[in-house]
Amino acid sequence: MSVTAAKGFTAAGIAAGIKENGNPDLALVVNNGPRRSAAGVFTSNRVKAAPVLWSEQVLKSGEVSAVVLNSGGANACTGPKGFQDTHATAEKVAEVLGRGAVEVAVCSTGLIGVLLPMDKLLPGVETAAAQLSEHGGEKAAIAIKTTDTVHKTSVVTKDGWTVGGMAKGAGMLAPGLATMLVVLTTDAALDNDVLDKALRAATKVTFDRVDSDGCMSTNDTVLLLASGAAEVTPEYEEFAEAVRAVCDDLGQQLIRDAEGAGKDIKVEVINAATEDDAVEVGRSIARNNLLKCAIHGEDPNWGRVLSAIGTTQAVFEPDRLNVAINGVWVCKNGSVGEDREKVDMRYREVHIVADLAAGSETATIWTNDLTADYVHENSAYSS
Amino acid sequence: MSVTAAKGFTAAGIAAGIKENGNPDLALVVNNGPRRSAAGVFTSNRVKAAPVLWSEQVLKSGEVSAVVLNSGGANACTGPKGFQDTHATAEKVAEVLGRGAVEVAVCSTGLIGVLLPMDKLLPGVETAAAQLSEHGGEKAAIAIKTTDTVHKTSVVTKDGWTVGGMAKGAGMLAPGLATMLVVLTTDAALDNDVLDKALRAATKVTFDRVDSDGCMSTNDTVLLLASGAAEVTPEYEEFAEAVRAVCDDLGQQLIRDAEGAGKDIKVEVINAATEDDAVEVGRSIARNNLLKCAIHGEDPNWGRVLSAIGTTQAVFEPDRLNVAINGVWVCKNGSVGEDREKVDMRYREVHIVADLAAGSETATIWTNDLTADYVHENSAYSS
Repeated sequence: MSVTAAKGFTAAGIAAGIKENGNPDLALVVNNGPRRSAAGVFTSNRVKAAPVLWSEQVLKSGEVSAVVLNSGGANACTGPKGFQDTHATAEKVAEVLGRGAVEVAVCSTGLIGVLLPMDKLLPGVETAAAQLSEHGGEKAAIAIKTTDTVHKTSVVTKDGWTVGGMAKGAGMLAPGLATMLVVLTTDAALDNDVLDKALRAATKVTFDRVDSDGCMSTNDTVLLLASGAAEVTPEYEEFAEAVRAVCDDLGQQLIRDAEGAGKDIKVEVINAATEDDAVEVGRSIARNNLLKCAIHGEDPNWGRVLSAIGTTQAVFEPDRLNVAINGVWVCKNGSVGEDREKVDMRYREVHIVADLAAGSETATIWTNDLTADYVHENSAYSS
Repeated sequence: MSVTAAKGFTAAGIAAGIKENGNPDLALVVNNGPRRSAAGVFTSNRVKAAPVLWSEQVLKSGEVSAVVLNSGGANACTGPKGFQDTHATAEKVAEVLGRGAVEVAVCSTGLIGVLLPMDKLLPGVETAAAQLSEHGGEKAAIAIKTTDTVHKTSVVTKDGWTVGGMAKGAGMLAPGLATMLVVLTTDAALDNDVLDKALRAATKVTFDRVDSDGCMSTNDTVLLLASGAAEVTPEYEEFAEAVRAVCDDLGQQLIRDAEGAGKDIKVEVINAATEDDAVEVGRSIARNNLLKCAIHGEDPNWGRVLSAIGTTQAVFEPDRLNVAINGVWVCKNGSVGEDREKVDMRYREVHIVADLAAGSETATIWTNDLTADYVHENSAYSS
């Protein structure tokens, strides 16, 4: 059901010919109201794609009528012409929907540094608009795939209102979001400031803590649109929890579909002095190529965990660190702990716990192992 | 000639049985004076191996009579027993040489979290001491290899004095030094404060800018010992240049021998506002797994260079960035530049220039591509 699970939304996904292989590559999501409240979170990369620069401006008004998304080209590092193309895309959507271009957010994903084939994209907008449907959510989710092997959707339904969404992303997952496009919709009746607060709180502990390969994209965008069609205004906490749950589910789907990965690694940092410390240590562990290779080899190489912790500025004493891998405390007090032979690493999910013994804060970062398949996927062709 | 190229030094390298495969694993380097001045630079990892903790204390006196190095075990994360073992090793060297243990630096490399087989190491010290020779430099260089495919030595001879050295390292190369043990010797007559200044200046622009996989070791050590046997005191600038040249040569040898690498990548950042900016940007590019995969695939994917630059705090404007790969300016003003088809990437060395257009400072970071062989070497067995 994806972005059309919530009332008030229609969507479509089509093949406009942007991708040379003829796969679906253009999605349209339309908010039919009565409200058009919206919030957005964008990449923190300072090199931002044209659609990000455009959509950041659109979101300043707090209202979005439609989102147009294309795969098959990121429209990043494309100069003034690239920005003109994004603008023209928004104008085209506005024209066919009878809305203003300033209400149209644009998202793109694909190769950096290549201009979009506007002669295919603009007619594609007309085709997509003609196919808009309350059942179009899944097609839209399919049309935004790049190297994704599956499309990703999630829905949480509460007492009379719903939060649903779709995501694409299968690599370049990193803080400040993954190369990731996410559109969330809700029929709850909420103002844009409430949406913004709930969205930022959710992404901070979900997408921001999914770190497949430490690489940050130029195009990451997460949008949350509210139609108000359910005519229900939930309590903030309940709404925020629903948004967090959908983001968490989509984030997990991203990790499970990460390019070339054989393991999903949950890095849980406990007993940190501050949450920031926990996140810093978690990221450092999650980005350690040597550890990621060891996990791929099903080797509980805890020395590489300690090595990664040691590069951070977090509060800890080296001789008080403890590390568990899949429940076995292989490192105690910074030294050899339980027998590493006890660690069973045959399954896809691997759970690393790093105990800093310095406080009571915690954070969990998700990453993947580093594999020959990852290298192949990212070296055999441009992406 | 290695560490015995300079007068006043003897060395030995033997197989003590620390490595199960019977390969050489213990090296001894002795300064026979008349001076015993020394300086050292150690890992900035906060999780430091026992030999690093020991040697840092030894170096505080500014005098070192001997260095004992073992491969086959890092003696890191080994708790109080590990430190006792390092101490016992230094005592043993002191005993057989008739010196004080506080003059004996200790270096170890190998797997983290495993105690050294002292029943083999201590008798090995006696064997090595019996084989000390003015021609032992090469044997010492061989005995410190781990996954190195070749041993690494370098010598610069000036007017009546010499700087020579040996290095081991083939992975975990990163700032704050590589997993890397380096011993440099000179017969110049210099005080330890001069040695310290020259060594820090040299490592800052050589070993510190070799970043094979962004992983920082618990054991990195670079030592510089001066015997004064040449009875010559060179000008500081000339001496510092010789030390830098030997460090640079050894650093290049490390990059060329990096585990599983197929390409050596020179990342040159130019026109930065500050040298720190240039280093930050260079490191960010050098650590981008997606770019490293692209280089492996001989794909001049400059979008990944811009993506990496965008994650830094350096001074730059996205639309003024220029990137050249092997001499072709594939990105101009943050957008598409010359035809990427012109880039010839068939050879081992790849040269990336990132022009920040923000000043006049520069820095060069060396790294390697990311390959399936790297994954294999670091996942197929513990290291």
